[in-house]
Amino acid sequence: MNSIEKLIAAEKKNNSILCVGLDIVAEKMPDKLERSIEGMLEFNKAIIESTSDLVSSYKINFAFYEQYGKRGYELLENTIAMIPSDIHIIADAKRGDIGNTSAAYAKAVFEELKCDSITVSPYMGKDSVSPFLDYSDKMVFLLCLTSNSGSNDFEKEKIGDKYLYEVVLEKSMNWGGTDNLGYVVGATHPEELKNIRDLANDRYFLIPGIGAQGGSPDEVMDANGSGPSIINSSRGIIYAGGNEDKYADFIRLAALELRNQLNEARI
Amino acid sequence: MNSIEKLIAAEKKNNSILCVGLDIVAEKMPDKLERSIEGMLEFNKAIIESTSDLVSSYKINFAFYEQYGKRGYELLENTIAMIPSDIHIIADAKRGDIGNTSAAYAKAVFEELKCDSITVSPYMGKDSVSPFLDYSDKMVFLLCLTSNSGSNDFEKEKIGDKYLYEVVLEKSMNWGGTDNLGYVVGATHPEELKNIRDLANDRYFLIPGIGAQGGSPDEVMDANGSGPSIINSSRGIIYAGGNEDKYADFIRLAALELRNQLNEARI
Repeated sequence: MNSIEKLIAAEKKNNSILCVGLDIVAEKMPDKLERSIEGMLEFNKAIIESTSDLVSSYKINFAFYEQYGKRGYELLENTIAMIPSDIHIIADAKRGDIGNTSAAYAKAVFEELKCDSITVSPYMGKDSVSPFLDYSDKMVFLLCLTSNSGSNDFEKEKIGDKYLYEVVLEKSMNWGGTDNLGYVVGATHPEELKNIRDLANDRYFLIPGIGAQGGSPDEVMDANGSGPSIINSSRGIIYAGGNEDKYADFIRLAALELRNQLNEARI
Repeated sequence: MNSIEKLIAAEKKNNSILCVGLDIVAEKMPDKLERSIEGMLEFNKAIIESTSDLVSSYKINFAFYEQYGKRGYELLENTIAMIPSDIHIIADAKRGDIGNTSAAYAKAVFEELKCDSITVSPYMGKDSVSPFLDYSDKMVFLLCLTSNSGSNDFEKEKIGDKYLYEVVLEKSMNWGGTDNLGYVVGATHPEELKNIRDLANDRYFLIPGIGAQGGSPDEVMDANGSGPSIINSSRGIIYAGGNEDKYADFIRLAALELRNQLNEARI
């Protein structure tokens, strides 16, 4: 089963298009957990155990692991090992470099870490993306329109009558197929999401920005229509337990509610 | 001494604007070296020992280390530890993400790994770059016009009468000062380099693409004029010894020749 088949199977099995982002920060964990690599692994374990029947995928933002150095790398490996094998794993690493370098990044993420997909920055063009697509059983999510305020700086610059993010989309679509090339489109831009969905109705969109970043589930689902998608929430779910003793119950409840809300809003 | 002062001091001490890229691939090392993490560390040690009085900086491309997983991370740490403390270390990691994520990447590279500077992708805009610039004693090299063929895909798209890479340059210049924000400009575009230099005559440029990628030292130096710069060569130097027993002598010779060639061509 390749990575997109795995994603679709998990969606069906769990009746969910929800992705939980494992973006842990030691200082934000419930007080009862130790501020250590072991404590963070325990936190990830609790998140995964309480949500793995409610999601299609987990998104692992590499920065949050890399900041802890070598021990962070171990935490990354051990976290990936805890994710059930039928759930899609997204390496949110935003890599991209000249060809031989991107090939090495692809090897790191797909072979060493056994992730199913990776987020890639388009700035350097086709030969910086292709080495990831050469792993045709894996998936690439190319940055299109991101959820942050800085998306106004370059992504929304006009090239003729098109925005840069539209040019990225249109130019890159034939670099990969519907089964291995999708796009990152932020939940904070529902109008643009609708437009991008019209331009690429059969592509998987990884949609971050729900919750802490301000994206509304209903608006997003309305704009996305029936297009294939992965809706990510990180902080809104993993910190839902605050300092409660039974924090995992609150995490599960937050994931369950968002999954259901997304399903109800799906067209 | 902050990172730019360290860079300028190393330039003066070694009379060099040369940067050697430690982009090692096990299969390309001299046959006498073991194809292992230990062998790669031995190779890096030989490169550093035979060139550290000839360079202003070393550039470490993270992909080549990440592809070996946890042991690759150890190799990265151990390689950094071998570089003399008066030589500037560039983390060629091409990171960039939403604010809190870029902050974690900055912590990884500047605090955990103690690098002096990092390459950052501009696609996601100001708030994806600022967390790196917040380390005001370090340096950022923002991708402007890269050395690969894919630079034609988006970097050279026209926004009004300007190329995207020009818009990136102009819009970002006030995000940081001359002491902490420079640009990556590929050696494979001497005409554009001249133009970019005119737009930003006091900024440090990290210029890769000499040698294996086709950039000519003379053309580059002619285009760059007297602008502050770091000229990187990776494959052309580190594999200069082929399978020779005394491969380190050939590496030193290649670095010495390129350093001198750059100095002679400097305006």
